[in-house]
Amino acid sequence: MTKILLAPDSFKHNLSAIEICHIGRSVIEQAIPEAEVIELPIADGGEGTVDTLLNIMGGEKVPFKVQGPWQEAIDSFFGWIEDDATAVIEMAAAAGLPLVGERLDPSSTTTYGVGQLIGAALDKNCRRIILGLGGSATNDAGCGAVAALGARFFDAEGQAFLPVGASLDRIHRIELSGLDPRLKTCEIIAICDIASPLYGERGAAYLFGPQKGADADMVRLLDEQLRAFAAIVKRELQLDVAHLDGAGAAGGLGAGAAAFLAAKLCPGIDTILDLIDFNAKAEKASFIITGEGRLDGLTMEGKAVYGIARRGKQLGIPVFAVVGDIGEGSNALYKHGVTAILSTNRRALPWEEARKSSREDLEQTFYTLMRLLQVQLFQEE
Amino acid sequence: MTKILLAPDSFKHNLSAIEICHIGRSVIEQAIPEAEVIELPIADGGEGTVDTLLNIMGGEKVPFKVQGPWQEAIDSFFGWIEDDATAVIEMAAAAGLPLVGERLDPSSTTTYGVGQLIGAALDKNCRRIILGLGGSATNDAGCGAVAALGARFFDAEGQAFLPVGASLDRIHRIELSGLDPRLKTCEIIAICDIASPLYGERGAAYLFGPQKGADADMVRLLDEQLRAFAAIVKRELQLDVAHLDGAGAAGGLGAGAAAFLAAKLCPGIDTILDLIDFNAKAEKASFIITGEGRLDGLTMEGKAVYGIARRGKQLGIPVFAVVGDIGEGSNALYKHGVTAILSTNRRALPWEEARKSSREDLEQTFYTLMRLLQVQLFQEE
Repeated sequence: MTKILLAPDSFKHNLSAIEICHIGRSVIEQAIPEAEVIELPIADGGEGTVDTLLNIMGGEKVPFKVQGPWQEAIDSFFGWIEDDATAVIEMAAAAGLPLVGERLDPSSTTTYGVGQLIGAALDKNCRRIILGLGGSATNDAGCGAVAALGARFFDAEGQAFLPVGASLDRIHRIELSGLDPRLKTCEIIAICDIASPLYGERGAAYLFGPQKGADADMVRLLDEQLRAFAAIVKRELQLDVAHLDGAGAAGGLGAGAAAFLAAKLCPGIDTILDLIDFNAKAEKASFIITGEGRLDGLTMEGKAVYGIARRGKQLGIPVFAVVGDIGEGSNALYKHGVTAILSTNRRALPWEEARKSSREDLEQTFYTLMRLLQVQLFQEE
Repeated sequence: MTKILLAPDSFKHNLSAIEICHIGRSVIEQAIPEAEVIELPIADGGEGTVDTLLNIMGGEKVPFKVQGPWQEAIDSFFGWIEDDATAVIEMAAAAGLPLVGERLDPSSTTTYGVGQLIGAALDKNCRRIILGLGGSATNDAGCGAVAALGARFFDAEGQAFLPVGASLDRIHRIELSGLDPRLKTCEIIAICDIASPLYGERGAAYLFGPQKGADADMVRLLDEQLRAFAAIVKRELQLDVAHLDGAGAAGGLGAGAAAFLAAKLCPGIDTILDLIDFNAKAEKASFIITGEGRLDGLTMEGKAVYGIARRGKQLGIPVFAVVGDIGEGSNALYKHGVTAILSTNRRALPWEEARKSSREDLEQTFYTLMRLLQVQLFQEE
């Protein structure tokens, strides 16, 4: 019996992980009719995390109205797993990029709705919240979210206000006595896409500001604001969030969740893989097929393909990555357990573009072929 | 001992077949140090045919000055294999597209230089000419070439002239008595890229006129001219070239060579593969890697990958095709002996383009992977 594990992440804005699994199953079943195909759509903490976890852990999607990134009323949702008293929340469902459309402005948008989702989960007497930090449109260091849960922020004049990306340095005093007391008995596991510090070159503003719509000036401003925030948190709460791994995730929501909600910041993909009991599901598989829209050097900082490759290596199972775009640095994955990377691109770029890398592309294709031909699969048992 | 046969065609205007072989060898030798790698760069009768055949059959490249497509003096060449008294001529070396640059006009250009190359070969007392018909810039039905060898064309007024694509219908009488007599003792094997009739929907003008610079009006004109040419040849020489396979090759040079030079029109790739003793070279190979710049439905009409796939099938050797652009209809190759088609494109097209075919691209990539994983190679002997 050939067991094949399909464990792709989504191709962002193109194909969901579940769709990819379906396509894979249909092709595999035609090619190897006797194969047992296991579908295990993966997410790394960003969009699709709720679906992924509910798919494996059971539970239901609960619709819930919250304030969106611009404080407008929006329909949001969270996942609820009754048996475990566990809620699964994607921050992107209340403060994500797709919600702002063209109106990109990480200096003004808020994570308030994320706090409301947490509040709704607490109303269900949840004991654990899995909070996916990924795909944010915001840069408010999570102040909005904790404000929704009862924290209050005051400026130097003693005026209460809701801090956003551009007004973090106005915070003078933080009042936590109003925080929802149920938070004390609820474990929050915050899943970070990438372990990044709060500020600086690899911090939230510089690394992710541009894709949220920040120009160079705004990036600089946002970074200064995050520095100011870290200083205030240190002064007021005696907490150092500046160098916490993942503090910069989701526009600093990592820092806010850690500082005010005692959230544990956990590396995305490994946490997800543990939650869905990946190793047990992969047991005795002949091979694993994973995939992602794009691979590059950042893949090694906690993306799905990287996490799954490492598991494959531990378990001694070949891992094939089917990928929409193979960027610089992808070959490092070969060291971490990927047997072969296959591109889905059948059509060539325009010739002027394609020719620039034609030698290297050819070389890599030969290399992929060689690696594939040397896999010893379907061995007699 | 693992024997691997590298037999790619060129990626046109990008990588030569020889370069591709070198890249392949270096990757394979790193991956499988004990492998015996055989390099067999392939051409299908077009550009690169002389290099390909000399590479295998020995012989030398002879420089020779001729008239180019615009009757300008150009440096050309042919291949000379002394032992076999065989010349190898690429028509493209005297009347090919790269020679005209931007000055594309198949209604005015001539194959005169091709005839001069044949004359030069005859001067060497050759007994056989292998004439590659491919990559032409012309549509003169080979009248230029035969004129260079002594044929004369007269109009209704008895005026001698050199017919070109737009003046074939001016031919009234053809005088062959002046043709070089040495042609009688020399076998001409004309290698056609694609078996196409002289005129009509799949004829020289309609199928290849556009890539030679003809607009819709000129295509129509060229097609009518070729019809007129066939009628004159029938009337004057009692020969039917209209439905000859390959008559439309190289702008009708197929027809002219058959009618006036008694050339045998041979299907390109199979003839080449026989000339280079492909089957003997492939013997005991574990697999064959071939490739081409682009695959599509036309590949099945005699391109290199198709020919090699069929040989692989006959010989029971897996054939992998490494390809720059995988177009519509490529999957038909699976029926003809290709084990898997690998795309060299690592980078995605712009998203708006890529998304149109993302489901199918993914499906095909899974399929390729399945086919590759099911190959049984490196078996114990």
